[in-house]
Amino acid sequence: MNNKEFIDKVSLKTNFETEDVKMLTSALIEVVLGDIAEGDSITIQGFGVFEPREKARRKVFNPTTKTFIIVPPKTTLSYKMSAALKERLNME
Amino acid sequence: MNNKEFIDKVSLKTNFETEDVKMLTSALIEVVLGDIAEGDSITIQGFGVFEPREKARRKVFNPTTKTFIIVPPKTTLSYKMSAALKERLNME
Repeated sequence: MNNKEFIDKVSLKTNFETEDVKMLTSALIEVVLGDIAEGDSITIQGFGVFEPREKARRKVFNPTTKTFIIVPPKTTLSYKMSAALKERLNME
Repeated sequence: MNNKEFIDKVSLKTNFETEDVKMLTSALIEVVLGDIAEGDSITIQGFGVFEPREKARRKVFNPTTKTFIIVPPKTTLSYKMSAALKERLNME
């Protein structure tokens, strides 16, 4: 399902205009990203937790050139399912 | 940030009532979960892709009792950041 289909489905489900759903979805993402940028984790009930993780810089060996490359540190976003969701996906 | 703070922030950002934000957030999650239950992956623009993954059943050895336990198959939800988000989190 792509973004448009997603917005359409939510709009149908809630009777909100697609424009409103779009706006709210972006706002939601903005709030999530704002907190992540500050290093905070975010819990969304019934869905799970998003948590930023700092990966340290590391050395990588390139066997062709026989040199080490320094990979800079980076931030990734990890997601962990909530217990409720885990249960729900494994009900059958 | 917990669920309430999250809803409040989105409400403030969009001028939607918290009740509307709550309703829309649940609808959003319902749509995501509905598609996941059918085995579909979901792309949310600027955020990433959610994809259900089937983990096969597997044998686990319990060294104390020296017996094998069969762990039943299960479905997990994997999340992958979008390229845009990756860039954004690693701008500084």
